[in-house]
Amino acid sequence: MSEASIGIFDSGMGGLTVMRALMARLPHESFVYLGDTARLPYGTKSGETVTRYAVQAAGTLMRRRVKLVVVACNTASAVALPALDAALAPTPVIGVVEPGAQAAVAAAPDGPIAIIATEGTVNGGAYRRAIHALAPNARVIQQACPLFVPIAEEGLIDSPVTRFTAELYLGKLFADMADRPRTLVLGCTHFPVLKNVIAHVAGPDVILVDSAATTADAVAKLLVERGLASEASKAPRHEFLATDSAERFARVGQIFLGRAIEPASVELVDLQDAG
Amino acid sequence: MSEASIGIFDSGMGGLTVMRALMARLPHESFVYLGDTARLPYGTKSGETVTRYAVQAAGTLMRRRVKLVVVACNTASAVALPALDAALAPTPVIGVVEPGAQAAVAAAPDGPIAIIATEGTVNGGAYRRAIHALAPNARVIQQACPLFVPIAEEGLIDSPVTRFTAELYLGKLFADMADRPRTLVLGCTHFPVLKNVIAHVAGPDVILVDSAATTADAVAKLLVERGLASEASKAPRHEFLATDSAERFARVGQIFLGRAIEPASVELVDLQDAG
Repeated sequence: MSEASIGIFDSGMGGLTVMRALMARLPHESFVYLGDTARLPYGTKSGETVTRYAVQAAGTLMRRRVKLVVVACNTASAVALPALDAALAPTPVIGVVEPGAQAAVAAAPDGPIAIIATEGTVNGGAYRRAIHALAPNARVIQQACPLFVPIAEEGLIDSPVTRFTAELYLGKLFADMADRPRTLVLGCTHFPVLKNVIAHVAGPDVILVDSAATTADAVAKLLVERGLASEASKAPRHEFLATDSAERFARVGQIFLGRAIEPASVELVDLQDAG
Repeated sequence: MSEASIGIFDSGMGGLTVMRALMARLPHESFVYLGDTARLPYGTKSGETVTRYAVQAAGTLMRRRVKLVVVACNTASAVALPALDAALAPTPVIGVVEPGAQAAVAAAPDGPIAIIATEGTVNGGAYRRAIHALAPNARVIQQACPLFVPIAEEGLIDSPVTRFTAELYLGKLFADMADRPRTLVLGCTHFPVLKNVIAHVAGPDVILVDSAATTADAVAKLLVERGLASEASKAPRHEFLATDSAERFARVGQIFLGRAIEPASVELVDLQDAG
């Protein structure tokens, strides 16, 4: 089983920022990444719908005999983790919310901690709960930033559009200067590609927390605990599955993965009939 | 049959701009509007996927015994109309692309005509074909404006974000000053709510064409031709169906419909099992 791949899924391509961190942290592991591009985005959809989609996506990965499933979508991590644990047991499932909360509390044990995320993640309140489980008295403030998702997918890394959108959202978040948060959690896998603009608008005194790196640490630890780590001698495999448009997956995906993806290497799959 | 409702569907809420024009043009008609909010947007998805979703959505409307189906989504009109005609015959189907093309050619018989739309609509080339069927020598230029969709859904009617996004997209379109288009087709049902900013950036010499009004004219004409027009004496019914989150449908939808929508009046439906 230790030679099996690690499964990763996301609503689309944003979760490739998590795959990028996993590849850097675990260079000997093989990965199979599934993006549910026919139904993205998840961030504006209800918890019930996101949970149904997430269980279908994870089921498709399980049929590829993965040893572990990483939920690289904040929205799905925020709302669907209990259903995924139940559906996939005994295969372990790791989301990105808890590692992100740990990193935020490590950076600012007493808060205030600011979270930016999709509407679905903010409304679900999972970051707030995960932070309060570690630091019951930390003040947490949240702001939905839905436009950052398509802006990142358009590759507008450094554009006035991105800057004014950041000012629109972060202006609300940092309005109370007396109790200004010094820690800002990037609670959506799309947001790390906009890090420079977000950091510039937030100001030099604000620490940005990106859950990709801490999620990779959590995965590494779990692999060792369960005796599932791959041998260093094997050449790792990197597979990509998408539910729509391999061409768009490859084109937009490389913004997030930070390396080229060949459209021919992306396999189209249908989740409708997945068990 | 003339007392049956007119069915309207769209990927989400943008098509409510078409319903608004239909209600103004045909005040005695009843309407049932379906927004496939669980799978929106269609504009970034492949033609095959959009066609499958559109046939499922139209099938759900047919089971409500509608007398006519209006495809109030440019992307679905651009790629799925032949499949819808085949699936729904003899019930008539009207899309928004052909009425939009007619209005554009009426405004600028010799071109140049500029089209702004989603990626899916631009890639499908349906506007170009519909315009060339009417005016074979008209020059047509197209520009995908994917960010306008979430910007309209955020209700950013008048924001620097909207203005800089319009400058980004329209700058490309109007770059060639020697042969500058004087007619700009709003080839996505989301775009009419951003009309003021688009008109401002395009300049006072550019005529904006919105297919909602011409689509309403085409529907009115077809109802009379087929003897399907409703009697003036009946009180019209306005029903709303969505595949996800009635609350969000009502909240965002009123931006496009131009009047309040009660969340309780929005019925949730599942298209997965629709015939």
